[in-house]
Amino acid sequence: MLLCDIGNTSYHFFDGENSYKRDVTSFEPSSLQEKVYFICVNNTLHVKLKSLHNWIDLAQYIAKDKYYKTMGIDRIFAVEAVANAVIIDAGSAVTVDVVQKGRFVGGFIYPGIRAMQKTYENISPALSYSFNFECDLDIMPKNSQDAISYGYLKTLYCEVMSHKLPIILTGGDASEFQKIFTNATIDTALIFNSMKKIIQQNEDTLC
Amino acid sequence: MLLCDIGNTSYHFFDGENSYKRDVTSFEPSSLQEKVYFICVNNTLHVKLKSLHNWIDLAQYIAKDKYYKTMGIDRIFAVEAVANAVIIDAGSAVTVDVVQKGRFVGGFIYPGIRAMQKTYENISPALSYSFNFECDLDIMPKNSQDAISYGYLKTLYCEVMSHKLPIILTGGDASEFQKIFTNATIDTALIFNSMKKIIQQNEDTLC
Repeated sequence: MLLCDIGNTSYHFFDGENSYKRDVTSFEPSSLQEKVYFICVNNTLHVKLKSLHNWIDLAQYIAKDKYYKTMGIDRIFAVEAVANAVIIDAGSAVTVDVVQKGRFVGGFIYPGIRAMQKTYENISPALSYSFNFECDLDIMPKNSQDAISYGYLKTLYCEVMSHKLPIILTGGDASEFQKIFTNATIDTALIFNSMKKIIQQNEDTLC
Repeated sequence: MLLCDIGNTSYHFFDGENSYKRDVTSFEPSSLQEKVYFICVNNTLHVKLKSLHNWIDLAQYIAKDKYYKTMGIDRIFAVEAVANAVIIDAGSAVTVDVVQKGRFVGGFIYPGIRAMQKTYENISPALSYSFNFECDLDIMPKNSQDAISYGYLKTLYCEVMSHKLPIILTGGDASEFQKIFTNATIDTALIFNSMKKIIQQNEDTLC
């Protein structure tokens, strides 16, 4: 069974054993003959994939009224995977979604590492530092690098910890954020597992 | 007595009654004959002002060892003005400094409103919203505008409130942030009052 999580920059495949990425600008989805179960946040590609009968959009098997209209399908699938957790998906944006007793409570969007570093750099060349993920967030900073690292990380940390729920990290920068959220679990297969769950729940129709 | 707080874009004057701004690119400091007490974060201008005998740099009257080397002189003067407070200076950057029992505990730097809006916009056109300062920060968001507003504001709010100190707002966006920090005091004259205090403490040398 081939699964595919499509973002704005890449097709992320999982063939049951291995996961691999293909660039959206060069990969041709019609080159695949087998059945591909997918979710897609990329509107242009979405239209194209609708015309390919072997690409099955799993989004249609979600009860969308639990979520909000403009919420990304990748966030929805991450939320569908858990019962009680704060899910932090750390990529170009950091999305933070709260699930309690299997119910989506709500979520927010925070800039990703590179986007936020660029922001500080644009405010002033004097703030052009990499974030220090080893910075002690229990101590108020007394140097410029820690002042921006703390500004980016401690603010996020305070909000996330206030929910008093287990924390699940996913996305390309999950391991960086685990330095801050030391008790968090990294689950890089969160969305693929959720896709498998949805397929199992709908196997009469899908398989 | 003429006071002047010089930033990267303007000279901000206070003549004892009124405050007014002059653009750094067009204003000529040597056009003033009277004594001007100033602080300056603009390195290029700082060099120029040193050659003018009637421009008195108040930075030299501060015990710098209480602060860190790259900390802006405007932040230092804001801190010198208070004994127990979190000072939020909301401009192109938002600086947050903590003072307890007259001692500088430390501080951090967070992006200003326009810089952060630009950041979300650059991540995705789908996040190109103005922040909703009326967004209820007690409720997890369920729409895109609130998801970024909460991401920007609630994270900052959680950190600031954790200090359990009175909050003083200053800078051009102080009134926007007061919508979130409803018990905060706005003090637009914080730095000028601090400059006056330093002058009084050193009147034997300065006046």
